[in-house]
Amino acid sequence: MPLSGEFLSRLEASFPPESLRLAADQRKVYETDGLTLFREVPGAVILPANESEVIVAVNLCREAGVPLIARGAGTGLSGGATPRADGALLGLSRMNQILEINPLSRVARVQPGVRNLQVTEAAAAHGLFYAPDPSSQMACSIGGNVAENSGGVRCLKYGLTVNNVLKVRTVLASGEVAEFGDESGCAPGLDILALLHGGEGLLAIVTEAVLKLTARPESALAALAAFDSVENAGDAVADIIASGVTPSGLEMMDALAVRAAEAFVNAGYPTDCAALLIVETDGRREECESDMKKIRKVLEARGAREVRLAEDEAERELFWRGRKAAFPAVGRLFPDYYCMDGTIPRTRLGATLRKIAELGERHRLSCANVFHAGDGNLHPLILFDDANPGELERARAFGSDILKLCLEAGGTITGEHGVGLEKINEMCLQFPGAELERFREVKRAFDPGEFLNPGKAVPTLHRCAEFGAMHVKAGEERFADLPRF
Amino acid sequence: MPLSGEFLSRLEASFPPESLRLAADQRKVYETDGLTLFREVPGAVILPANESEVIVAVNLCREAGVPLIARGAGTGLSGGATPRADGALLGLSRMNQILEINPLSRVARVQPGVRNLQVTEAAAAHGLFYAPDPSSQMACSIGGNVAENSGGVRCLKYGLTVNNVLKVRTVLASGEVAEFGDESGCAPGLDILALLHGGEGLLAIVTEAVLKLTARPESALAALAAFDSVENAGDAVADIIASGVTPSGLEMMDALAVRAAEAFVNAGYPTDCAALLIVETDGRREECESDMKKIRKVLEARGAREVRLAEDEAERELFWRGRKAAFPAVGRLFPDYYCMDGTIPRTRLGATLRKIAELGERHRLSCANVFHAGDGNLHPLILFDDANPGELERARAFGSDILKLCLEAGGTITGEHGVGLEKINEMCLQFPGAELERFREVKRAFDPGEFLNPGKAVPTLHRCAEFGAMHVKAGEERFADLPRF
Repeated sequence: MPLSGEFLSRLEASFPPESLRLAADQRKVYETDGLTLFREVPGAVILPANESEVIVAVNLCREAGVPLIARGAGTGLSGGATPRADGALLGLSRMNQILEINPLSRVARVQPGVRNLQVTEAAAAHGLFYAPDPSSQMACSIGGNVAENSGGVRCLKYGLTVNNVLKVRTVLASGEVAEFGDESGCAPGLDILALLHGGEGLLAIVTEAVLKLTARPESALAALAAFDSVENAGDAVADIIASGVTPSGLEMMDALAVRAAEAFVNAGYPTDCAALLIVETDGRREECESDMKKIRKVLEARGAREVRLAEDEAERELFWRGRKAAFPAVGRLFPDYYCMDGTIPRTRLGATLRKIAELGERHRLSCANVFHAGDGNLHPLILFDDANPGELERARAFGSDILKLCLEAGGTITGEHGVGLEKINEMCLQFPGAELERFREVKRAFDPGEFLNPGKAVPTLHRCAEFGAMHVKAGEERFADLPRF
Repeated sequence: MPLSGEFLSRLEASFPPESLRLAADQRKVYETDGLTLFREVPGAVILPANESEVIVAVNLCREAGVPLIARGAGTGLSGGATPRADGALLGLSRMNQILEINPLSRVARVQPGVRNLQVTEAAAAHGLFYAPDPSSQMACSIGGNVAENSGGVRCLKYGLTVNNVLKVRTVLASGEVAEFGDESGCAPGLDILALLHGGEGLLAIVTEAVLKLTARPESALAALAAFDSVENAGDAVADIIASGVTPSGLEMMDALAVRAAEAFVNAGYPTDCAALLIVETDGRREECESDMKKIRKVLEARGAREVRLAEDEAERELFWRGRKAAFPAVGRLFPDYYCMDGTIPRTRLGATLRKIAELGERHRLSCANVFHAGDGNLHPLILFDDANPGELERARAFGSDILKLCLEAGGTITGEHGVGLEKINEMCLQFPGAELERFREVKRAFDPGEFLNPGKAVPTLHRCAEFGAMHVKAGEERFADLPRF
């Protein structure tokens, strides 16, 4: 059901024209976030210039019972910001000011539309950086990073977004402004700051964030390690972590991903290996070197065919450029890909990769594997061609099976991309009823009218019951219950 | 009002005798936690042997509307576990098993009654340790550490309890069992694991926790720095952190605390200084040394009269023994002391200490200062003699003024001891209404009947309104509204 004329008139009366996009062609631009499997043209788009306009938007939507969906840069990969025809999209891209960089207390105060990389660029003059580094960091924004609790390569050593945000200012569903957290990291009261991380826009709208800045390490060393066996590469990852070293990056790519990246970026990757690890250490020079020595020993003990150290800063950056471009590199070779996100215990990497390959055969689809191995965070890229009838459905079924594999291995259904619309059914598999019911009660504690991003992240018990009923049936049929709205 | 005979009979019918303490002399033992200002003999004491008995206790209390107060080792310093005559105390000391130490994934799975130091002792054989180290770590237990989100000396580098617990198993107010978090640190859904840290027993009862273990650093260096001025010592702390070094401990003691500790432990402290810093670096040998060189430069630039490096492991431990014994050392010299806990920005250390001294003159009481300086976490010890009429009240007034000072400096009313009963009024000063109301709604989301540790941690808006009314009046009178129950 589209938005009523009355509601649209109220929007026009409440906002300056530059804060609204109501024409159909303007709204169409926002029909999807980074997960393009889900599309719906929003009923209205509000682009607030400041916090006051956010408050107006929240109040209007709450009073009218209109769904309000916050959106950062639209790079999310789980449909967390997928719009609704009967809802308003709240795009925070115009609130993009860095308000303060304080090198003494090592914090940055920013608006939610500030891009992730922009913070590091602004802090660089003081020898500081903002640690979380999602692959989309050139584009994704801090508000979205908070909503999804974003990770990245460096999170193995420096923590997720929740470990790097000290305080947020928010607009609550009631339209009130509230601040949670404290620069000291010692705020009293319930830890609502942490709760908002990964809250996916269900609890409140962030209008300002105080970020922890980290001293840029003196030096960094990176190495490539080529393996003839995926299992050995996986075991090497577990051994490196067990050795007590915490690399600042520990990534794995399988043969298909390596070849695609090399063809795209010429990073110097050995294209005939079964799996490639990229390992980085950072800190003081001596520390980097002694860590790398330890790592090399582990790699060789696990049968690495070749361990190659970047000879200079330029080569180190090249190693990473290949990894960071892996998604688009794979995207060049296949008409469509579907990026999954799940975690498994590091000790199960090898076995899980073998099983993913078996699942691929069953679904008759290829899969490239690129992942944050040190965290046990998998990103299988399922390759398909939407032009071939049935392939999209097979890709989704394959993806869902991979998530079940993660659960069976003792892992989780999302590492860093969030639940959104995409994985709402799998939440029913991850959590028995008591946990889910607590999630729902907390949601209601913040948003009793349930108008903030409804239908995302936390399934109703009713949906889970229905999904359970579908789940017991075999074959394609269970996908009849894919998220709809 | 005491508990009804009917409720007591129901307890006796539901638990084996060894799980109950119902006689008056048995209950009296539990009348207070570590904050002995608050005392009340509990109506009943339940000491469950296992999770099933926790569930029975929760169900019985919920159904009867009887307050249920969870207690760990009773070392808490904010009255978070203060009992009620009309309530049951749930002591978790019997659930004290370490269930698993896994050196490969570097985790420990423990019951809530396991003592903090016990975890480190059990992990030592694998070269691992559990990082959070409250001064009470020989006695305090993991369940209490989660409830209060405990800190310690090493938290500057290694994080608070919330950064070192991966997963908890809980009994909810409904009597259901639920698990939050994941060993990968990537659990989907709302971050209820973080919410339970500092939840002070208001949300759920922890029956099991999975803890992150950390590799024991290769070496550690400790130094003492003596200053003739408290301000200079405070400025040195801010400069050390701003220099980019993260010490594994950065503590400060004022003249009174130094003298008391030295007289008690003979740690070798210079007893004629105005302030003493204890700084430690840990990691690889070269790293420790180069960090310490940087630190020494900062200390000297800020006018340290003497910087003394511990010559060996024994001396390093001696330096810490003095600091860790500072509370009892001060306690030896004065009949009573009242330990406060607040935070301020590190850059305000010197100025705040001066103002605390001024407040002391006004309240005609002495105060020894011992604190986690690197975190900006103050622990003023207010010295008084309860035998002198009016001194206790003056001590409390002094304490409350110190917390207001922390707030004025841009800090918080608690660093690591929690809110409990003690600071429930100050929560009204720290938070305007919107935040408090959200805390209350989250509490209700977990415990609609509000029988889990009622009256602690989160004030009602009604209480804040009353406190505000009292607060505008001058002098002793405002303390008429000290927590009562």
